[in-house]
Amino acid sequence: MTVSTQNPATDSLLANIPKSLEWIGDSEGHLRLLDQTELPAKTEYLDCRSAEQVHHAIRRLSVRGAPAIGCAAAYGLCLGAREARDNHLDDPSEFRAKVADLADYLCGARPTAVNLEWAVRRVQNCIADEPELSVAAAWEKMLAEAREIHAEDVEMCRQIGEAGQDLIQDGYGVLTHCNAGALATSAYGTALSVMYAAHARGRKFRVFADETRPLLQGSRLTAYELAAAGVDVTVLCDSAAASLMARGMINMVIVGADRIVANGDVANKIGTYMLAVLAKYHKIPFYVAAPSSTFDLQTADGGSIPIEQRADFEVRKGFGVVTVASAAGVVNPAFDVTPADLVAGFITEKGRLERISREKILEFFS
Amino acid sequence: MTVSTQNPATDSLLANIPKSLEWIGDSEGHLRLLDQTELPAKTEYLDCRSAEQVHHAIRRLSVRGAPAIGCAAAYGLCLGAREARDNHLDDPSEFRAKVADLADYLCGARPTAVNLEWAVRRVQNCIADEPELSVAAAWEKMLAEAREIHAEDVEMCRQIGEAGQDLIQDGYGVLTHCNAGALATSAYGTALSVMYAAHARGRKFRVFADETRPLLQGSRLTAYELAAAGVDVTVLCDSAAASLMARGMINMVIVGADRIVANGDVANKIGTYMLAVLAKYHKIPFYVAAPSSTFDLQTADGGSIPIEQRADFEVRKGFGVVTVASAAGVVNPAFDVTPADLVAGFITEKGRLERISREKILEFFS
Repeated sequence: MTVSTQNPATDSLLANIPKSLEWIGDSEGHLRLLDQTELPAKTEYLDCRSAEQVHHAIRRLSVRGAPAIGCAAAYGLCLGAREARDNHLDDPSEFRAKVADLADYLCGARPTAVNLEWAVRRVQNCIADEPELSVAAAWEKMLAEAREIHAEDVEMCRQIGEAGQDLIQDGYGVLTHCNAGALATSAYGTALSVMYAAHARGRKFRVFADETRPLLQGSRLTAYELAAAGVDVTVLCDSAAASLMARGMINMVIVGADRIVANGDVANKIGTYMLAVLAKYHKIPFYVAAPSSTFDLQTADGGSIPIEQRADFEVRKGFGVVTVASAAGVVNPAFDVTPADLVAGFITEKGRLERISREKILEFFS
Repeated sequence: MTVSTQNPATDSLLANIPKSLEWIGDSEGHLRLLDQTELPAKTEYLDCRSAEQVHHAIRRLSVRGAPAIGCAAAYGLCLGAREARDNHLDDPSEFRAKVADLADYLCGARPTAVNLEWAVRRVQNCIADEPELSVAAAWEKMLAEAREIHAEDVEMCRQIGEAGQDLIQDGYGVLTHCNAGALATSAYGTALSVMYAAHARGRKFRVFADETRPLLQGSRLTAYELAAAGVDVTVLCDSAAASLMARGMINMVIVGADRIVANGDVANKIGTYMLAVLAKYHKIPFYVAAPSSTFDLQTADGGSIPIEQRADFEVRKGFGVVTVASAAGVVNPAFDVTPADLVAGFITEKGRLERISREKILEFFS
C-alpha cells in the first residue's frame, strides 16, 4: 500500500497532500477516508467500519473520483463481509450469498463510474473459485484482494503520469476540469499525475483549473492539491474557459474519466463535453487520462451510459445560501458524455492511445 | 416614466417584478435602486441622493445590466449636479465644468458596457448648446433628459420584445445567460423581453437559465423574474449547457449585450462566447437582443473592447465560504467577446438584423 518510490521526485511533491483513503491497521483494522466535502477549509477524516458507512461516504462525495471510489468500495465490501463473519455467518455458501448482496448494495451507491463495479466484483469474485474455503480464510483473501487493487491503483496512476508527461511542454497553459488528482485516486491521480510527472522533471507550465460547479471540485480540490505540490495553478469559472482559449492561454486540455466505453465515448464530470467542443473549435488537443479499470468494453457507446442526476440543492443552495427562486426548476446532471471524435487521445498506464476507434481500443486492451 | 401600456398582456406579467430603478418625487426627489445583490432572498432598495452613491451602487452591482446602468448613471449625474447647484456653484460655465468632471467620474464606474457612457454623455451634452442657461434651468433640463432616457429605455425594451417574439415557437427550449431582463433594464429587459412577449401571446416554451458564475445573475435574477411572470424556467450550471444542447433540449439561445461594435462583435457576460461556440457546434441559432444604445460604432472590432477584470473574492469566496486554496491564483474576467460570425442575428428596437456585416450594421443605424 506504500506509494511507489520509483519516482522519488514526484513522491516528494505529493507529501503535503493528505491521502484520499488508507486502510488503518491489520485485518481487524478499518478504512480511513479523507472527507473531501470539507476541503480546503478543513482536513477531516471518516473512520469507516461498515459497508453502510462506506456507501454513505460515496453517496455524499466524501470520497469521489472513479479510481478512489473503486478502492473505497472494495474495502467497503470487506468491512461488510467482516461484520457478517463476526455475526457467526459460518456457512461458506451463505457467506458468499451475503457478499453478493453487499456487492450489489455497494455498486448501487453511484451509477456512472465503472471502476466502482469493477473493484467490487473483483473482490467478490476472488473467492468464487474456492467455494469450500472457510469464511475466515475467504475474508482474509478478500481483504488481500482489496489491498492489491489499492496498490495497483497507485502504480497505474504513476504510470499514467509517465505515459503523458512529455505532452506538456515548457510554457504551456494546461486546462483541467473537476479533480482527477491524488484526491480522486489512491495517489498521483490521472490527469494530474501527468502534470506532477512533468513538474517533477522541471518543466515550467501553468495549470488552469475550472472551478467545476456545482460542488467546486476544481477550486476546492484540484487547486488545493496542485498548490500543495508547488504547481502553478489558477482557478477560473467554468464559463471562462472558452475566453481563455480564444486568448491563446490554453495549449492543451487534460481531464479524467468516470467511464470510457467500447467506441471511445467518455463519461466524466458535467462540463467535460463543453470543454471538448470548445477545444475542437479552438484547435486545442483534448486528452483523457484514465486507468484500464475505467474502460467498460461491454457498453457499446456513450448513449448507453447511465447518467446520474443529482439533487437540486447542490445548485439551489450550494453554499448555504439560497440562490434560486423556489418557483424555478433545476436540472443537475452530474456527468456528460464526450464523443470519441473530440478526444485527441487516451493516456493510460499501458501508454497512449491516439486516433481512437473501436478496433484500436479492443486491440489496445487485448 | 410610466411603463408603456401598449401591451397590457405583457405589462401584467411584470407586475410581480420589483422595479430595477425609479426616480422618486419631483426635482427635489431621489433615485431608488433595487439592491440586486440581495435577490432572491431579500427585496431591498437603495435610496441614492449623490453621484457617489450611484457610482458605488454600479461598482458593487446593486444595479447592473447595461441599459439599467445607463439610466442609473444618467440620474447619478443629475444628483451630482444638484449637489453642486445647492453648494452655490452659480456660474454656468463652472457648473458645466463640474458636470463634465462628474460625468467622467461616473463613466469610470465600469468599463465594458457602452450604455453607461452613452447615457451620461447625453445628459452632459443636453446643456452644451445653451452655455448661458442658468444653473437652475440647466439642472432642470438635465433631469428632464435623464427621465427621457429612462422612458425611452422602457419603450425600446418593449419594442425589442415585439421584434423578436415570433422567433420563439411552441415547444421550444430557449437558453439564456446572465440576466438580460426587466431587472437589467428599466422594464421588460432585452433577451427576456422577447420571452415575455412570446409568453403574453400564449406561446408554450421552456426557458433554461444558466446560473452564471461567479455572481449567479442567472439563478438569482433571471429565474426569479421569469418565475414571477409565470414563465416556465429551469436553472442549470453553466457547464451543463453543452450537454442539454447535445440532448436536443435547446432550440435557440438569446442573450443580451454590454457592447456591440462596428463589425458586430459582442461583449457580454463571461460565458456568452462559450454558448455561442457551443450553439454553432450544435447548429442552434444564437441571438443577441439589445437596444441601439448598446451599439458602439466608434469601436472597430471586439479586440478593442476593454474587458473588466473583477476581484478574486467573487470566485474565491462568493458565498461567504472560502472555496479556493489561498496558494492558488484566480482569473475573473467579467465579460467575453463573441465574434459576429457566431451570431445569427441582433434583435433591436428597430427590428432584427441578420446575416451581420459591418456594412449592414452601418446601414441599419443610418
